[in-house]
Amino acid sequence: MGRMLRTWDHGFEAAFEALLTAKREDAPEVDEAVAGIIADVRARGDAALVELTARFDRVDVAGRLRVPEGEIDAALAAVPEAELAALHLAAERVRAYHERQVPRDESWEDEAGATLGWRWTPVDAAGLYVPGGQASYPSSVLMNAVPAKVAGVARLAMVTPMPEGRVNPLVLAAARIAGVDEVWRVGGAQAVAALAYGTASIAPVDKITGPGNAYVAAAKRRVFGKVGIDSIAGPSEVLVIADAANDPDWVAVDLMSQAEHDASAQAILVTDDEGFGTAVAAAVAARLETIERRAVAGASWRDFGAVIVCGNLSEAAELADRLAPEHLELLVEDPDALAARIRHAGAIFLGRWTPEAVGDYVAGPNHVLPTSRTARFSSGLSVLDFMKRTTLTRMTPQSLKAIGPAAETLARSESLEAHGLSVALRLAQLNR
Amino acid sequence: MGRMLRTWDHGFEAAFEALLTAKREDAPEVDEAVAGIIADVRARGDAALVELTARFDRVDVAGRLRVPEGEIDAALAAVPEAELAALHLAAERVRAYHERQVPRDESWEDEAGATLGWRWTPVDAAGLYVPGGQASYPSSVLMNAVPAKVAGVARLAMVTPMPEGRVNPLVLAAARIAGVDEVWRVGGAQAVAALAYGTASIAPVDKITGPGNAYVAAAKRRVFGKVGIDSIAGPSEVLVIADAANDPDWVAVDLMSQAEHDASAQAILVTDDEGFGTAVAAAVAARLETIERRAVAGASWRDFGAVIVCGNLSEAAELADRLAPEHLELLVEDPDALAARIRHAGAIFLGRWTPEAVGDYVAGPNHVLPTSRTARFSSGLSVLDFMKRTTLTRMTPQSLKAIGPAAETLARSESLEAHGLSVALRLAQLNR
Repeated sequence: MGRMLRTWDHGFEAAFEALLTAKREDAPEVDEAVAGIIADVRARGDAALVELTARFDRVDVAGRLRVPEGEIDAALAAVPEAELAALHLAAERVRAYHERQVPRDESWEDEAGATLGWRWTPVDAAGLYVPGGQASYPSSVLMNAVPAKVAGVARLAMVTPMPEGRVNPLVLAAARIAGVDEVWRVGGAQAVAALAYGTASIAPVDKITGPGNAYVAAAKRRVFGKVGIDSIAGPSEVLVIADAANDPDWVAVDLMSQAEHDASAQAILVTDDEGFGTAVAAAVAARLETIERRAVAGASWRDFGAVIVCGNLSEAAELADRLAPEHLELLVEDPDALAARIRHAGAIFLGRWTPEAVGDYVAGPNHVLPTSRTARFSSGLSVLDFMKRTTLTRMTPQSLKAIGPAAETLARSESLEAHGLSVALRLAQLNR
Repeated sequence: MGRMLRTWDHGFEAAFEALLTAKREDAPEVDEAVAGIIADVRARGDAALVELTARFDRVDVAGRLRVPEGEIDAALAAVPEAELAALHLAAERVRAYHERQVPRDESWEDEAGATLGWRWTPVDAAGLYVPGGQASYPSSVLMNAVPAKVAGVARLAMVTPMPEGRVNPLVLAAARIAGVDEVWRVGGAQAVAALAYGTASIAPVDKITGPGNAYVAAAKRRVFGKVGIDSIAGPSEVLVIADAANDPDWVAVDLMSQAEHDASAQAILVTDDEGFGTAVAAAVAARLETIERRAVAGASWRDFGAVIVCGNLSEAAELADRLAPEHLELLVEDPDALAARIRHAGAIFLGRWTPEAVGDYVAGPNHVLPTSRTARFSSGLSVLDFMKRTTLTRMTPQSLKAIGPAAETLARSESLEAHGLSVALRLAQLNR
């Protein structure tokens, strides 16, 4: 079972530090292989994609790299009605939430007479990576594609590996529902390279988002700068702060819903009641006997899970800020008051009726969130990730007269003569 | 002189592509050295900083790593009045602009009864890198520090190398004016490592911004993930779109104000009048005889500069979007109309009275902007770079009843049983 720590124990600080810094992922030596794959795709384009896909995914995609619309229609038709309705509900709710994120353009005239402002515009084209196999989640398609479309991205290209030609029909259905414009039968570093540099078939994009394995992550790092990328996600994590008034089994299942993702996932309970902590640990042990993904969840709980008993909820808030968790459940009497005392978390789930899983699917906020304590300085995926801001400045002769001399002075102090001259020539004309 | 291209010439496309893709910087093999420096600072902390600073900056900082407040007071007192007034004006205008960027928190109840929203909070601590030597610009101190302080960053630590112990007093003055909390006498990769990992003297920060040489850039790349970083800036660039109604010398000086930054900088004129283009080229040649930094500006103009003659302003707008320039001057009759047709630029300067240099110092918008065509997908530095968003979800029993079943359905379709259970247990209680 996961360890039980008490904040007043001797050695708590060291044990807590170990939880914070636990290395939860191997960094396999993939970077060199990825560099070779990217170079190959840049040099040989589609031919490289076909060859690499035959090798890694054991499927021949020559002449059929792109998934035809008819195949997506068929997938959509094959999805059972309940799933389809759930996907539509999720897409609608995610869209409604993200529409509120669309930033406003601004323009104003200041007291010097300068007109200042900014303007937001979408990227022209975005690429969405969707893993194949076990982690091929239709919910991730929605969470990446919907914000891009809300931002106004005109062209959204999705790439996904289809080992032996197989693809989860729900993934294709989600792509259609979310408004994905193109689906390509290619994955891995080769797909990222194609999106970044383009091939004869796949036009290049400006921004690439979406989760992937170590090869995909390494490829995203390598093409960063040529295109924009989202953050590189680490293993997922949840911190649950719960008082004794909760049902221990609810809390145990909430912890396991994180642990079942991945053996590297991390689930931690902080409670102010030791008896309750013990009861949750027992409930976890019981659930680990029966749940389908008990091997994965059990490994996660054993290696990275913990129950932390603290003196009071203030102490819990401090621990939360030190963990800066991706997901934070506040299963307490007054969750708003507790939330107000916490500065660092990707997403907060308030109150006993808000299991984190609703946020994975249908609540509305994005489920792509900062992991590995990066919530200290970064945010979940949003509409802003698919837009960029252009600043605007318009000087009148009068406003240049008012503030130009200061620019000249500073330019001179930085020994940038032409900077100063570009202002001085104009001022000279005004003073003529 | 820079080349002259006409859009209707045979070979224009190839020549324009070459301008777009010109490799404007060496990528020296610094990465290994930087890895060693970071490891050394992590292992030995302040002792490594002192030793590396003695080696690289030829100054002994043992016991005096931090610049005392008295030394900053003295620098402030030594700055001539005109410079001080200009710095204050710049800081005030930059602050006023950035205060408008502070994002709003939102919270609303949707039709299902769920309370959704988000909350923005500043990072706890930020680090600002300021180069020493020739590129030690007080304006950059303001442009990085003011947004951090407007965001509400409680602790802003500045690092800057002081070769032989020397520092530009204007840099210290700008730090004081902008509200920097700590100034440290250390630069290079070792300073970035100290900010990211902390030493006995320098507490770690959450976000590092600011320009630097290849070692600093490599160090920022390496610590990314442990802390947030701003974008890695490439050499600066300007695109000027000008019609024949301009004074060719104004345009020439505007081009040179970019070229004088760096031999790798890029200055391009696009005009719809060939005679005007020729006149600007001649004016550039004349200015290159006299300006102080003519060696640098001349190399930049020779290697990366260009005058492009096009048929009309629509064509100019298309070229601008392909270049996605860091700075874009629109020296035309109706700059607003032209700006509305351009999607990709870091900053737009509208009209004949708006030389780009006002934006470097006093206009208000940030001068840290996306270079090397990254304006296709990224934005200049802003208050948002020092903040992060936490999403908020609160379900009631009724709203969980309404949307929980869809979450259960999708969890089951993704084979994530505990996810579904976390909803199902709560719904079972409601239906009991």
